[in-house]
Amino acid sequence: MADKAAVKQKFIDNFDPLVDDLLAVLRQYNISPEATEWFKKSLYYNSVGGKLNRGLSVIDTYKILTGKNELTDEEYKRAAVLGWGIELLQAFFLVSDDIMDASKTRRGQPCWYLVPKVGMIAINDAFMLETSIYILLKKYFRSEPYYIDLVELFHDVTFQTELGQLLDLITAPEDEVDLSKFSLAKHSFIVIYKTAYYSFYLPVALAMYMAGISSPEDLKQAHDVLIPLGEYFQIQDDYLDCYGDPAVIGKIGTDILDNKCSWLINTALKKASPEQRAILDENYGQKNNNCEAKVKTVYKEMDLETDYFKYEEEAVGRIKSLIDNVDESRGFRKEVLNAFLAKIYKRQK
Amino acid sequence: MADKAAVKQKFIDNFDPLVDDLLAVLRQYNISPEATEWFKKSLYYNSVGGKLNRGLSVIDTYKILTGKNELTDEEYKRAAVLGWGIELLQAFFLVSDDIMDASKTRRGQPCWYLVPKVGMIAINDAFMLETSIYILLKKYFRSEPYYIDLVELFHDVTFQTELGQLLDLITAPEDEVDLSKFSLAKHSFIVIYKTAYYSFYLPVALAMYMAGISSPEDLKQAHDVLIPLGEYFQIQDDYLDCYGDPAVIGKIGTDILDNKCSWLINTALKKASPEQRAILDENYGQKNNNCEAKVKTVYKEMDLETDYFKYEEEAVGRIKSLIDNVDESRGFRKEVLNAFLAKIYKRQK
Ligand SMILES: [Mg+2]
Ligand SMILES: [Mg+2]
Ligand SMILES: [Mg+2]
Ligand SMILES: [Mg+2]
Ligand SMILES: [Mg+2]
Ligand SMILES: [Mg+2]
Repeated sequence: MADKAAVKQKFIDNFDPLVDDLLAVLRQYNISPEATEWFKKSLYYNSVGGKLNRGLSVIDTYKILTGKNELTDEEYKRAAVLGWGIELLQAFFLVSDDIMDASKTRRGQPCWYLVPKVGMIAINDAFMLETSIYILLKKYFRSEPYYIDLVELFHDVTFQTELGQLLDLITAPEDEVDLSKFSLAKHSFIVIYKTAYYSFYLPVALAMYMAGISSPEDLKQAHDVLIPLGEYFQIQDDYLDCYGDPAVIGKIGTDILDNKCSWLINTALKKASPEQRAILDENYGQKNNNCEAKVKTVYKEMDLETDYFKYEEEAVGRIKSLIDNVDESRGFRKEVLNAFLAKIYKRQK
Repeated sequence: MADKAAVKQKFIDNFDPLVDDLLAVLRQYNISPEATEWFKKSLYYNSVGGKLNRGLSVIDTYKILTGKNELTDEEYKRAAVLGWGIELLQAFFLVSDDIMDASKTRRGQPCWYLVPKVGMIAINDAFMLETSIYILLKKYFRSEPYYIDLVELFHDVTFQTELGQLLDLITAPEDEVDLSKFSLAKHSFIVIYKTAYYSFYLPVALAMYMAGISSPEDLKQAHDVLIPLGEYFQIQDDYLDCYGDPAVIGKIGTDILDNKCSWLINTALKKASPEQRAILDENYGQKNNNCEAKVKTVYKEMDLETDYFKYEEEAVGRIKSLIDNVDESRGFRKEVLNAFLAKIYKRQK
């Protein structure tokens, strides 16, 4: 659908006035033009360029919850502020994650900290991306009764994501391979905290507050489906990293090289014979294509792809029955959850 | 006074239950004991060990504003939560500042990122120190009408500090000396944003909210004295870095070696003859004790100490007359400001 590009473009167009709002704060403080330009460059470099699925989800969810096909400009703009809030949160996490992981590229361009003159200043730039969220919430939502709920939701999800990062960083440091630290239980935990909360629960919860459908019971219903959905999404991601088509995904997977605590390695560890385990111990997480090939050979021997397909059917069945049981009597809609599931099920990228 | 140590110890004793509150959140999420231990270690390593002046100021200011000599345990505890909020904010900034500045030690021990196994995980640890502030505010102040004011104040001051950091980082990068980027005007700006807001305005404003003496007019009165006071404090700091007694301060100054945009170099640049300027250009910011000595010789030739004493008398006179003009009719007290000034004036460390 040609529509999809237009939908994304409309959302991107809504970023410019938000950047203006943020730069206006700097001008009000009489910050030098040099520093203002720097911040502007960081905002665009780090927030735009991805798929923007998280931000767009706020708008889609709000439409479903209110039953509106078209939003007024004002309504769209406010939903877009919340959507860009998530994208800024993600930018904050990605800029710093790339430093912590010593990554080279992100979204097809050098990581921000590798851009000439940036270096470790990127850490402070990441902070400013995060703080921008609260400047925008204050400007656009201060007079709403649910303003403090939005602020607390961002704080809570930020902390959850930081906890996921911490566990990931101490479980799978890039320079110290120790597969005995891995387990499917840890994987599940890392994935839920590091990804599911901010990518799945956050956009829906934000839209729920804005739509006024935000009783604790309805928020819990959303949470209880979106967290397993987010876990399924990340396991797909781990699967596609190894088995997806790089031409379709747009990048070559590096999870094996990078010692990632991926669903595949954790499943392999559970099934491995002593001989296979020795090969995995020796070759996983080595920055070496030969080692990577040996790990992939073990995966093939074990037929991990079939394990993945089994997992996927089980997970999707479970999520569907959770959705079936959602109570719509207070205003929450199953369609919100089905729309997420439909976007994800059997995705190729 | 032996009292001073007891006052500090009482404040420190109040940190333990706050750490318990934060760790309880991790336990509620079922975070692994390994990650919980990590976070606990980071909290203590990075928040305790400094002078705690900022945190203690909240309590002192609250006492003056309410006219109470003794606080109830409950009142003390709540003021201490706000004080520890500032100390956590400072910990967040210092952990990351040390990475950005490639510093080696902090408060007499290795910087957190240099502790074995920590490395760049320190970035995520810094984030968690910051987010902890909001977890504690929520727990202890959620039902107060000024809860959102506290949250917004922390957000605003955080952004101001980040702006000061940004300007500092792009004006005085450690590896690229260019004195033509320096000026007293830039110095003033950096100092006000990087230090004065969080160290001087924030503790007083927090205490004002808690005491219920927080009209916009009174907050502005506090702001308009505390910002120049904070600027004076940092200029003292710059002066002591070069002219203070290391035995009293507890560390050896490194501003010249580190290419710091200090008040001294900026004043020197204003006064320098072409010959002196050439010496400064060649020797400032070089990691070399000979170069440092040459810069100090120029400072001595220029008699910068006398410039500093003149600045100090002028600044203190100006601040005193600002305090004299404070209107106490709505409840704000000159004594709050005089107490700050008394602590700072002619300090040796
Ligand atoms: Mg990464
Ligand atoms: Mg990472
Ligand atoms: Mg992946
Ligand atoms: Mg520093
Ligand atoms: Mg610094
Ligand atoms: Mg200093």
